[in-house]
Amino acid sequence: MGEVVTIRDTGEFGLIDRITADLPADERVLVGPGDDTAVLSFPTGVVAVTCDVLVEGRHFRRDWSTAIDVGRKAAAASLADIAAMGGTATALVVGFGAPPDLPTAWAMECTAGLREEARAVGASLVGGDVVQAPEVILSITALGDLAGRPPVRRSGARPGDFVAVAGRLGWAAAGLAVLSRGFASPRALVDAHRCPAPPYAAGPAAATAGATAMIDVSDGLIADARHVAEASGVVLEISTLGWEVPDPLQAAASAYHVDPIEWMLTGGEDHALLATFPPEAHVPEDFRIIGAVVAGEPSVVVDGAVRDAEGGFRHFA
Amino acid sequence: MGEVVTIRDTGEFGLIDRITADLPADERVLVGPGDDTAVLSFPTGVVAVTCDVLVEGRHFRRDWSTAIDVGRKAAAASLADIAAMGGTATALVVGFGAPPDLPTAWAMECTAGLREEARAVGASLVGGDVVQAPEVILSITALGDLAGRPPVRRSGARPGDFVAVAGRLGWAAAGLAVLSRGFASPRALVDAHRCPAPPYAAGPAAATAGATAMIDVSDGLIADARHVAEASGVVLEISTLGWEVPDPLQAAASAYHVDPIEWMLTGGEDHALLATFPPEAHVPEDFRIIGAVVAGEPSVVVDGAVRDAEGGFRHFA
Repeated sequence: MGEVVTIRDTGEFGLIDRITADLPADERVLVGPGDDTAVLSFPTGVVAVTCDVLVEGRHFRRDWSTAIDVGRKAAAASLADIAAMGGTATALVVGFGAPPDLPTAWAMECTAGLREEARAVGASLVGGDVVQAPEVILSITALGDLAGRPPVRRSGARPGDFVAVAGRLGWAAAGLAVLSRGFASPRALVDAHRCPAPPYAAGPAAATAGATAMIDVSDGLIADARHVAEASGVVLEISTLGWEVPDPLQAAASAYHVDPIEWMLTGGEDHALLATFPPEAHVPEDFRIIGAVVAGEPSVVVDGAVRDAEGGFRHFA
Repeated sequence: MGEVVTIRDTGEFGLIDRITADLPADERVLVGPGDDTAVLSFPTGVVAVTCDVLVEGRHFRRDWSTAIDVGRKAAAASLADIAAMGGTATALVVGFGAPPDLPTAWAMECTAGLREEARAVGASLVGGDVVQAPEVILSITALGDLAGRPPVRRSGARPGDFVAVAGRLGWAAAGLAVLSRGFASPRALVDAHRCPAPPYAAGPAAATAGATAMIDVSDGLIADARHVAEASGVVLEISTLGWEVPDPLQAAASAYHVDPIEWMLTGGEDHALLATFPPEAHVPEDFRIIGAVVAGEPSVVVDGAVRDAEGGFRHFA
């Protein structure tokens, strides 16, 4: 039996060298890893930037997720934020904290996951920092390009707009419920918890179609709709009538005697995109219309009932 | 006696609201905190980006440093990286992890420190993420502007260049030695450990003067000179002859029977800038010449002796 090689053996600089080895060429990356900073080209002169932090034990567990899944999930959170402004991510910068006894292979697979998810939108890993920490920490900053379009903010929703959503709702929450009960099936839900599949292309598509407001659904549909309602000073009325409940959600909900619609309304971490469109817009096909914007005290109304933000993920609750 | 308000009481969104309250207006910040991403203007179309992570217990202690000092130190690490490319930081994005029982006042003061340090170079706090973690974690990403100049990389040093340094050497290391022995004086050294004073303006000045290579001295002069030597394929010859040892360093060195020059050669975290200049360059006045670049197997020679990187900060050592 060979010893497991840990990052104590590999060392900070060795780990950085390995993580950044064989990065694909990207003409937008003027200086890549290995200098004090990366240097990037943004020909439009406008840069969208966002940061998400994932902490072991809070946002993932190493016994529930593979290293690749953790890396992909961490990247997805930031990449989805760029999409939610109508942009496309160009580059990721990664702060990586880990205990010295972390297997080097785990760190390598995690960053491979980061790079894999970044590649899905054409973004590059351009730099970062590696430090010792009691648990695994991933801090992912994404930089993105808006292609000359104005950013789609949370504050632009207007009475008369449609409310629409692209991507999955409730899958990650249902997957977490499955895992929390000690099960590993339905596999599609568990996979969705381990690694989301954000509808990245729907973000720029919505911007091009004239979306008035958009947000990454990371805290739950109601909680994030509320952010749009408050920023825009409007009411978002959502109707669940006619919602198709995907089979795996229905199966898990039946087994646990819960309402799958609640998972879809309150589950976060799938990184769906919630957007509002003016009536005359051609809503992109990635989106399904789930409601309308009306005037009134900022709030979210679901099937006629005002809902507070309960069920949304609260980090210090 | 009133209860201490903790971030459990304040909550994630309340904390974000407070941290980002009353940010000064900055016309380069097209979208500030409160949306899925910040949006920044970079008229030259070129962006320098870097990330540094500080972990409580590893990079700072809450009983040794005030919250303001921790925030300033965290910001300084990233701001100095931008300076070391010849740029000026425009914006900071902050990932903040903390235990729920952290006093809200500590979090507020820490981010006030971040903002204060950023203001020293004219940079704005534009966004971030707040999460729960077992200890305080600060992940600071800085974005900077090179003002149309090419980045000053580690790889450009050429035989015949001068080696020069701007800023303090050894102060933070000496301050750590003082604190580690249970003392709080000389105060100037302790303060230097708690919060560095990088020579930010020297970075763009060096770039303008034609510096061929530059690096932020975060691991120690020898260790970082070695990075330049290896990236450039040259030898950096350093002479300590005639170095002035600042009084506080001399005092602490005498008390502990150590050679203060070793602190200056191996101590990191002061964020001095090490640069090389061609013979014909006007070396900016912030810099003092400490050596020369010569051809040879990449290495660092101090006073005629080859030095390995010992004393440089190794994160997993």
